[in-house]
This record gives sequence, C-alpha cells and structure tokens, in this order.
Amino acid sequence: MSAGTIYGVGLGPGDPELMSVRADRLVRNATHIAYFRKAGRPGRSRTIVEGMLRPDVVEIAMEYPVTTEIPLDDPAYAESLAGFYEEVAEDIRKTARTGADIVVLCEGDPFFYGSFMHLYTRVRDHLPVQVVPAITGMSASWTATGIPITWGDDVLSVLLGTMSEEDLTRHMIAADAIVVMKVGRNLPKVRRALEQAGKADRAWLVECASMAEERALPLAEAGERASPYFSIILVHGQGRRP
Amino acid sequence: MSAGTIYGVGLGPGDPELMSVRADRLVRNATHIAYFRKAGRPGRSRTIVEGMLRPDVVEIAMEYPVTTEIPLDDPAYAESLAGFYEEVAEDIRKTARTGADIVVLCEGDPFFYGSFMHLYTRVRDHLPVQVVPAITGMSASWTATGIPITWGDDVLSVLLGTMSEEDLTRHMIAADAIVVMKVGRNLPKVRRALEQAGKADRAWLVECASMAEERALPLAEAGERASPYFSIILVHGQGRRP
Repeated sequence: MSAGTIYGVGLGPGDPELMSVRADRLVRNATHIAYFRKAGRPGRSRTIVEGMLRPDVVEIAMEYPVTTEIPLDDPAYAESLAGFYEEVAEDIRKTARTGADIVVLCEGDPFFYGSFMHLYTRVRDHLPVQVVPAITGMSASWTATGIPITWGDDVLSVLLGTMSEEDLTRHMIAADAIVVMKVGRNLPKVRRALEQAGKADRAWLVECASMAEERALPLAEAGERASPYFSIILVHGQGRRP
Repeated sequence: MSAGTIYGVGLGPGDPELMSVRADRLVRNATHIAYFRKAGRPGRSRTIVEGMLRPDVVEIAMEYPVTTEIPLDDPAYAESLAGFYEEVAEDIRKTARTGADIVVLCEGDPFFYGSFMHLYTRVRDHLPVQVVPAITGMSASWTATGIPITWGDDVLSVLLGTMSEEDLTRHMIAADAIVVMKVGRNLPKVRRALEQAGKADRAWLVECASMAEERALPLAEAGERASPYFSIILVHGQGRRP
C-alpha cells in the first residue's frame, strides 16, 4: 500500500468563507484531520472547520505540552516542544503509512509563523507533503481597519510582540508600514516602542480579525485593557499615490 | 433606487482554486465586474476568472493610460494616473447609482500594494464598499519554494524592486526574512543589494507563483535572464525552532 499525503492546509484568519476553494474542498472531503491545540481547549483551527467535516472523520488532536507556562527563551521550552513535535510527527507518519491522507488544519498561512512548520520539517523527507497557502491574519486585520496597508514603495516590516523594546523601536523607525503580531500581554511594550518611533498616533489595534468578535480601533482609543494573544497592531504606510 | 455596493474582491495569486470561498461566490454571481488592465492585453485579474462568469455579465475594463512608458518618479506619471483614476471612479460611481453591485477584480490582496486602493479612496465616501482580503503573491511564492518564510521572532521586511540599491541593501541587512516584490527588470540591482547584504546565497527567485508557469529556484541558479515584472525574490528566515 502506498503512503498517504500530508496536506498542510491554511484555513486563513478565522472566517470559514475566507478559506480558499481548495482548502474548503480538502477539509470537507478529509477522512483524517490533525490539528494543534492547547489541552482542554477546542483549538482555534478545529473551531474554524466546525460543521464542515464528514461525520466519520478521524481526528488527531495534537496537544501542546506547554504554551505560556515556560518562558520562550528557557531551554526547557524548546526541549519540551522538540520532544512533542517528534512524537506527533511519528504519529502522523504512522497514520499516513496506512495509506490515509491527512489534512493538517493550520490557522493563517502554514509557512508564515505557523506551528505546522515544525511538523513539516519532520515529515517532508518521509512522505509526500502538499501545502495550501492562505489569507494571513494580517491581511484580515488591515482589511478590518478599512485602510490600505502599503502604497507605492512603502516598506512593510512584520514584527513580533515578543521582541525587545529596543529591537521593536529600531525596526518601527526604519519601516513605512508596520505589522506587529502576537501582541497580547506585550501591548504596553509595543505601545512604548511605537511612541519612541513617533508612530503611536497612527497605530491601530485589531482583535479577532474576520471573526464575529472582530474589533478594529485606533490604538489611542484602546485604553489599557489586555488584548488577546492573537491581536495585531498596524501602522499603515503613506507612500506614493496618484 | 438605492445605490449598489462596490466589492473590492481579492482573487489571490493566480490559481482560481486559491480564491476564497467568498470571492468565488461573488465572482460567479456578479452582474457587473470591473478590472484594471494594460490596453491591448486581456488583464491578469480578468484572466484568473475566465470561465467563472455569468454569460450576461457586464464588463468594465479600466485601461491604464500609461504603465512603463513614463518613469515612476516623473510628475507626469502621477498626473496622468490621477486623471485616469478620477475618470474610472466616476464611471464606477455612475454605474453603482443605477443600483448595480460591482465586483472589482483585484490580483492578490486588495489593500496590499493594490491598484484597487486608488479607486477605493475615490468611491468610499460616496458608496458602500466591501473589501475581501486574499492570499498574497508572496504567500504563494514562499509556498512554491517549499520552505517556511518566518520562524520564531524573525522580522520579515517586504521591499520593492523599484527602491534604490542603497535602501534595498540597508533593509536587507536589518531583516531576518525578506520579500522583494516587483522584481522584473530590477533583478540585477536587487541581486547586487543582496550580495552587499551577504544574503544572495540564500535568496530564491519565484515567477508566476501558483500558476501553470510557476518556477521557483535559488537565485544563484537563475542566471541573467530577464524576469517577469511580477516575479518575487525571497530570503527565508532562520529563526528559533524547537
């Protein structure tokens, strides 16, 4: 029996209508799906496809051993995750070798800061893999603001809320348009960096882009309220336009 | 009669299967479509939807008065385009006021370096507008390389081939992952900037991502052959991974 294919299927930012036609078809026809989630949670990617699956679909929930309990820069974090990814990759390889195609559900775009990438590097030398790109959370976020993100020769830099305040500030000064991903509890630091870069007054905060709870507002109006982990901060470019 | 809605519909990178479910539905049901193109050409966005349209669809082809005949930084370029955008916006407003919904076909994502943005700013105060985000050409490009673009805290910068060699080099040095859009005849300059930034050996060239003519290869193997205008150069990040 020949091995099945692993499909890394980007689901996009959250609205099921923003899945690609190919992703929609792959999800609806899937006999086996796999997805990452935090233990005890339904999982964001699994939630997006609710109501779309075959009744007899086999589900492989890959539950993170740690998420925010250990700091990102602690070697124990990488070690714990590496063991986890090895283990789930082995599960996936075993299942695929029974001949099953497996659709791995990926929030956003699989190759853009995605968890799937850690699985991908551990299965691509063993099995056929196909990756379906998707609409990113940042695209849904700038669409939610109603303002184009980049014009003419604008340089766009994508930064992470987990970066140091100094690095954030330096990159914010250099870029024309800015996306900060994974803001969450890093919001106060990101705000200080924006202020130092002189761009806080043009920044927007977007939460849950494309979902029912979507909220897009100027950062100046956002107050000190804690923001969800997946919220995004944007500064729109102001480049050349006729 | 109430005015129709303008839909700025992102079609994605070129493969019709990578259109979103919402875009697919809007295109198939459209009574009126509008799209930009160079005079005498079918138009890239129009080509993507070939075979999907109602037989009685009304087509509004918006033909650029200039594309590459005048340098981008010549005031005559901006002036000619500004007049053109005013004119097509007026056409679109008139048609929408007859009650027709108009689907504007947009390559890639409408708010990411899109032509639609120039129309958008000229109609949004007059008519209801809805924008549908889409998969970007850059997502399709990094998918085509089979290598994830960003890991961990990697900073991604999106640059334009039209920028000066000095600006390109400076941003290439500062970023972990790089996307250069609109490479085309700027390829030799982009290559020199990558060499000065010490990243030429890791760069990839992607042409026609997601389309039948797709071609993805290390830049070192690309030779001196001229590259299509919409080709993209990538340098993948190498950030933290467990």
